[in-house]
Amino acid sequence: MNTIPPRPVDAVIASLREFLGERVSTTQAVREQHSRGEDQTPPTLPDAVAFVETTEEVSRALALCHQHGVPLVAFGAGTSLEGHVNPVRRGISLDLSRMTNILEVNAEDMDCLIEPGVTRQQLNDHLRDQGMFFPVDPGSHCTIGGMCATRASGTNAVRYGTIRENVLGLEVVLADGRVIHTGGRARKAANGYDLTRLLIGSEGTLGVITRVRLRLHGIPEAMSSAVCQFPDLAAAVNTVIVTMQSGIPVARIELLDADQVAACVKYSKLENLQPSPTLFLEFHGTPAAVKEQAEAVEAIAADHGGEGFAWATDAESRNKLWKARHDAYWAAINLIPGYRGITTDVCVPISHLAEAIVGSKQEALASGLTTCIVGHVGDGNFHQVILFDPNDAAGLEKAWELDRKIVARGLALGGTCSGEHGIGLGKREFLEVEHGAEALAVMRGIKQQFDPKGILNPGKMFRN
Amino acid sequence: MNTIPPRPVDAVIASLREFLGERVSTTQAVREQHSRGEDQTPPTLPDAVAFVETTEEVSRALALCHQHGVPLVAFGAGTSLEGHVNPVRRGISLDLSRMTNILEVNAEDMDCLIEPGVTRQQLNDHLRDQGMFFPVDPGSHCTIGGMCATRASGTNAVRYGTIRENVLGLEVVLADGRVIHTGGRARKAANGYDLTRLLIGSEGTLGVITRVRLRLHGIPEAMSSAVCQFPDLAAAVNTVIVTMQSGIPVARIELLDADQVAACVKYSKLENLQPSPTLFLEFHGTPAAVKEQAEAVEAIAADHGGEGFAWATDAESRNKLWKARHDAYWAAINLIPGYRGITTDVCVPISHLAEAIVGSKQEALASGLTTCIVGHVGDGNFHQVILFDPNDAAGLEKAWELDRKIVARGLALGGTCSGEHGIGLGKREFLEVEHGAEALAVMRGIKQQFDPKGILNPGKMFRN
Repeated sequence: MNTIPPRPVDAVIASLREFLGERVSTTQAVREQHSRGEDQTPPTLPDAVAFVETTEEVSRALALCHQHGVPLVAFGAGTSLEGHVNPVRRGISLDLSRMTNILEVNAEDMDCLIEPGVTRQQLNDHLRDQGMFFPVDPGSHCTIGGMCATRASGTNAVRYGTIRENVLGLEVVLADGRVIHTGGRARKAANGYDLTRLLIGSEGTLGVITRVRLRLHGIPEAMSSAVCQFPDLAAAVNTVIVTMQSGIPVARIELLDADQVAACVKYSKLENLQPSPTLFLEFHGTPAAVKEQAEAVEAIAADHGGEGFAWATDAESRNKLWKARHDAYWAAINLIPGYRGITTDVCVPISHLAEAIVGSKQEALASGLTTCIVGHVGDGNFHQVILFDPNDAAGLEKAWELDRKIVARGLALGGTCSGEHGIGLGKREFLEVEHGAEALAVMRGIKQQFDPKGILNPGKMFRN
Repeated sequence: MNTIPPRPVDAVIASLREFLGERVSTTQAVREQHSRGEDQTPPTLPDAVAFVETTEEVSRALALCHQHGVPLVAFGAGTSLEGHVNPVRRGISLDLSRMTNILEVNAEDMDCLIEPGVTRQQLNDHLRDQGMFFPVDPGSHCTIGGMCATRASGTNAVRYGTIRENVLGLEVVLADGRVIHTGGRARKAANGYDLTRLLIGSEGTLGVITRVRLRLHGIPEAMSSAVCQFPDLAAAVNTVIVTMQSGIPVARIELLDADQVAACVKYSKLENLQPSPTLFLEFHGTPAAVKEQAEAVEAIAADHGGEGFAWATDAESRNKLWKARHDAYWAAINLIPGYRGITTDVCVPISHLAEAIVGSKQEALASGLTTCIVGHVGDGNFHQVILFDPNDAAGLEKAWELDRKIVARGLALGGTCSGEHGIGLGKREFLEVEHGAEALAVMRGIKQQFDPKGILNPGKMFRN
């Protein structure tokens, strides 16, 4: 009698059901929801999705996958843009989005302890009454766990740092189910290898984050936003360079190119803006400090031909502006009905930013593709959204080709292929180019030590 | 015929001489200079000291030590307080203090590339004309390479971060002589494992740092310092907590206890100060911002019984104040002629700082030992200098016993055994207590992967 031998993953699923019950799903719909993020990778269905609620459940799930050699991919809100949550080798998608407890908030120490499924918005809603906030803001409805795993940042990083600077410690489940605690509650420490920073940005390849201790910040007494338009990209970028060199502590300084401004005007009804390179700014501090900062930047902008410097302290105007900024991606892809977008994530030394942006824009124009640029320019990071027709395979290939050229230009200018989105599937080919073979070998060695069976998010970051 | 077999280290020394010539020294005086740092560990003489000048020389030296299984300890300025540069297993002391080239300074990007033997003072002297500075300031004549290796910080960390936040990338020679480059010139990156942060604070146990790319900062337009005295420690600490919660961007906020103030008054001729708990502050920004910050802190201090809030914007007064702060250790040990000091380095959540300091002080009084406390209180970090008679072995043992009690109290309050001095020899016993056995096993695994023969600064960080 011939029987199909049981697959290792079936044994894992059966054992998971023993303690998760109906929180293990093999339905088509749930598997499809966990087949990729907001990226453009071809979806892969996991064999099952396990909705975990405690560290112990995560630990048991990993121990099972380790025992049976079954791949496991941690899943949060699924907002990754680089294929991180696509289970390319199938196996288990471990959904942590139900782990949403805010376990501690310490007002005196301005820190908190949370579970990884807590979103940025949820945390800030919780904190508001206590006069504190968590500043790292990628602009999407991502979870804090996912932000840690991908080393996220966003518009506020120029002032408050990325998630790397705002995590005090982690609880992490290792590949075999062991639980470790990294970092601690002290604000700084010189106490052994910095496992916290090693795990931040490791994209689920070294362990699964089950708790995060975050630094919090006091809500500034005053905030104001400003908009300023420029005759060309170089004028806008040079305004940023001088602003940064002057040590003005801008909270946000974002560049939109003329095409992106046009898209936002249409999508977000931003009256009064011309389709020319534009800076969106925000200032945090005391009322006097905010006024002084805004006036200083206004003077620098005027020196560079900036026009119509308009600043607003009311929450409504500020919210409208930053909503438009956060919707920039949707504004861009709405330029052409039915199109979708590939988003680049190059980050260069700021002195090369104008060259990177202007060159990448010219490359796009030469290719005949429509692109829009938004940038966290205080950090030298910009995103070029490349529009493509999802029903045109040749057009998609052309879009990827442009993406590779933009990255190559960024690397040639001393930059990185990823300022904040991570490597995932999409940027693997650049990792060795950027770091060199020896440094990559060290990274592989670390991976091998943490995950000898290669079960943790296999196929990501490294090309095999 | 009986001959003494050649030792592996002799083969290494002979080979080193082939390319370093007289820059390999086996004289007693040079070996003594490299037998320990500014710590109180029993000195150990290395078999030889090699003064290297290039990355290639470092690489060849490590390859030789790797080949022959000979220990190697990197040596900078020898200012370590935790025994890091004591070659407890002998072998080669690799002196990098001659690698003092400042290779690049990029004003637009506010970064620089330097060799590891460059000191903080040397770098800041070089940068001054360009309106920039490097803020991390441990107060000693340390090298930047040593600061990276030990994850140093100091008085400015509360505003500018520690060295961890101010390094963009490293060149590192691995145990077998391979050279890797970590990080890059981009301000932020999500591009693979954070090897830069893994190596910062690794205390020479994972590799030897041969180049450092640093973030720089603009010299603030205005700076002012202030001094304020308090009726008791809790009042001073609570002033700090409220100041931090208010988001006032103090550049420095340092606490001195009554005994330390008395020592500084005597040693640094600080007139007008009473022997009571005192805060030294510094504010950076525009003239208006500095004034606003100082006035805000003055009001908070007054609410907590602070008296005599005196602030000064002239460079002379500021320099005198911070010179006194930096000399606090010497002031303390000068309280009793012929005595020396052990320095603790506990860092706790700021809400527990008063409890940690008051409790540690009481412990000291109960022991009959004289101690002085200075603290980077914005970060929750404080140093208690325990005076001891170097000619009294029992007294020294009592001092170490007090040191252990102070650390144990800090750990019990959710803190760390080391805020900035590192583990070295002196804090090894606390590493497992602080991180747990599983996390320590992960650290050991990383050490094993980077340095399978255990030649890099053996005996440090881990107890073996």
